Amino acid sequence: VWIVNLEQVSAVCLEVRQEYSFRDTILYALGLGVGGPDPLAASELMFVYEKNLRTLPTMAVVLASPGFWLRDPKYGIAWERVLHGEQSIMMHREIPAEGVVVGVTKISGMSDKGADKGVLLYSSKEVFDEKTGDRLATVSATLFLRGDGGFGGKNEPGPKPYSVPDARGPDHVLEFVTHPAQALLYRLSGDLNPIHVDPEVAGKVGFAKPILHGLCTYGIAGRAVLSTLCQGDPARLKRFDARFASPVFPGETIVVDVWNESKDRAAVRARVKERDVVVLGNGRIDLQSSV
Amino acid sequence: VWIVNLEQVSAVCLEVRQEYSFRDTILYALGLGVGGPDPLAASELMFVYEKNLRTLPTMAVVLASPGFWLRDPKYGIAWERVLHGEQSIMMHREIPAEGVVVGVTKISGMSDKGADKGVLLYSSKEVFDEKTGDRLATVSATLFLRGDGGFGGKNEPGPKPYSVPDARGPDHVLEFVTHPAQALLYRLSGDLNPIHVDPEVAGKVGFAKPILHGLCTYGIAGRAVLSTLCQGDPARLKRFDARFASPVFPGETIVVDVWNESKDRAAVRARVKERDVVVLGNGRIDLQSSV
Repeated sequence: VWIVNLEQVSAVCLEVRQEYSFRDTILYALGLGVGGPDPLAASELMFVYEKNLRTLPTMAVVLASPGFWLRDPKYGIAWERVLHGEQSIMMHREIPAEGVVVGVTKISGMSDKGADKGVLLYSSKEVFDEKTGDRLATVSATLFLRGDGGFGGKNEPGPKPYSVPDARGPDHVLEFVTHPAQALLYRLSGDLNPIHVDPEVAGKVGFAKPILHGLCTYGIAGRAVLSTLCQGDPARLKRFDARFASPVFPGETIVVDVWNESKDRAAVRARVKERDVVVLGNGRIDLQSSV
Repeated sequence: VWIVNLEQVSAVCLEVRQEYSFRDTILYALGLGVGGPDPLAASELMFVYEKNLRTLPTMAVVLASPGFWLRDPKYGIAWERVLHGEQSIMMHREIPAEGVVVGVTKISGMSDKGADKGVLLYSSKEVFDEKTGDRLATVSATLFLRGDGGFGGKNEPGPKPYSVPDARGPDHVLEFVTHPAQALLYRLSGDLNPIHVDPEVAGKVGFAKPILHGLCTYGIAGRAVLSTLCQGDPARLKRFDARFASPVFPGETIVVDVWNESKDRAAVRARVKERDVVVLGNGRIDLQSSV
């Protein structure tokens, strides 16, 4: 029987320093399929070429990341049953093409949904540019600890997920054909969980084969937003919240639906074309109004 | 007018130390399309997964490489007109999945074919394992300096290119569909020549778009050899010589023809399926007889 070590979990404060080069920035973009067989290729050259290189805003999720810290036995978490529920980035400044960043990850909340459901754990990472001291991004995640509910913690209502206006059709629809090796490539940006490469490990948790990283799908949805709403300019993306609904298998086609809602607000959703399944929902986009 | 600085070129001795991790080894394999949509994927998992990771022998060409040293003005070489003519690797030991290597690159010969033709320059790189001192590989290249011929150097006959027995059909034929982003990925292993990413630079030297690295095609031919002749075991490949015939564009299908010649000898050739053009010829394979 696992028992979450509440004190240890609440006190989490993980500081990570990362020096990254243009190679890491390009590798992240290639991990999202930039340069692949889709109509955006030419406009995205700046994400994969060191000359005038720009950083995709969603790279904030992998920068100065503490890795899969929940696996540390001191937290007492049934880590095999953890799911990534929600992801959010709030951009404060454009991420340099190379540099040194410091990330500080803390726990911002926890909610016990009961033994049969699990615990919602809210984590937040602040990413700073070491040289300038500028805060670059706030990266928040909701983790679903399915094996740790009913420990007597408070059951607090979480933030309401953003409603996608799917009563009407989307204003933009973009397709991204993922590559069979997409997860193998994306994992080199940091998340080495074997579920994305090892057929045996994937099989043990009920998948027919290794799955794509949820954050890869999130990054692909980000590419669609940049292209349709930001004229390709990464500085225009201010905020992107989304909820993970279902896994993607490498090689599948991800269809991203985008709804314009106002001058600086949009909604987004991603589906797998081959299976007509929503994989990322409740997507909220805020745009910088004055860039 | 460029004039080759003979003394400087003959005296070349470039020592490079490189620390590489499993991420670099995996990145090299992904740059060759391992994990892509071809029938070898399952047997090649060991080249893209850090658990029981093995190194593709052709990685010797990028390890501890001095880069594009001919560009240094002190050599007086018309570097824009240099072509990569031939490549050879001689394997002495299997390359570790990670470690520290030292490469020493020297010039082993030069032949002046006249002002209208150019100069053939033979370079050779010895790759050592820093920890054990073991020599891992001898990597030889023939560079064709098209703009520097007729400087009065000796015109010496080079080694005869290996004859592929194409009077009869090959014993094995394997197809590899390259990815549109293949060159973008391969270049992260070290060869950052903009001709492989920048449409403008590619255009200036007469290509409709950026071309794939010849050494990427070479590595793909190596994958075919491992799979058909070595039961996938990288330790079985002893030597691989080849001559570059024509460029490949990312996204094209590379067909590799393999001829068995004896117990420890084979011939290999690569063609682009869509254009029926030989891109790599005169391929000679020697196998370790007792692994």
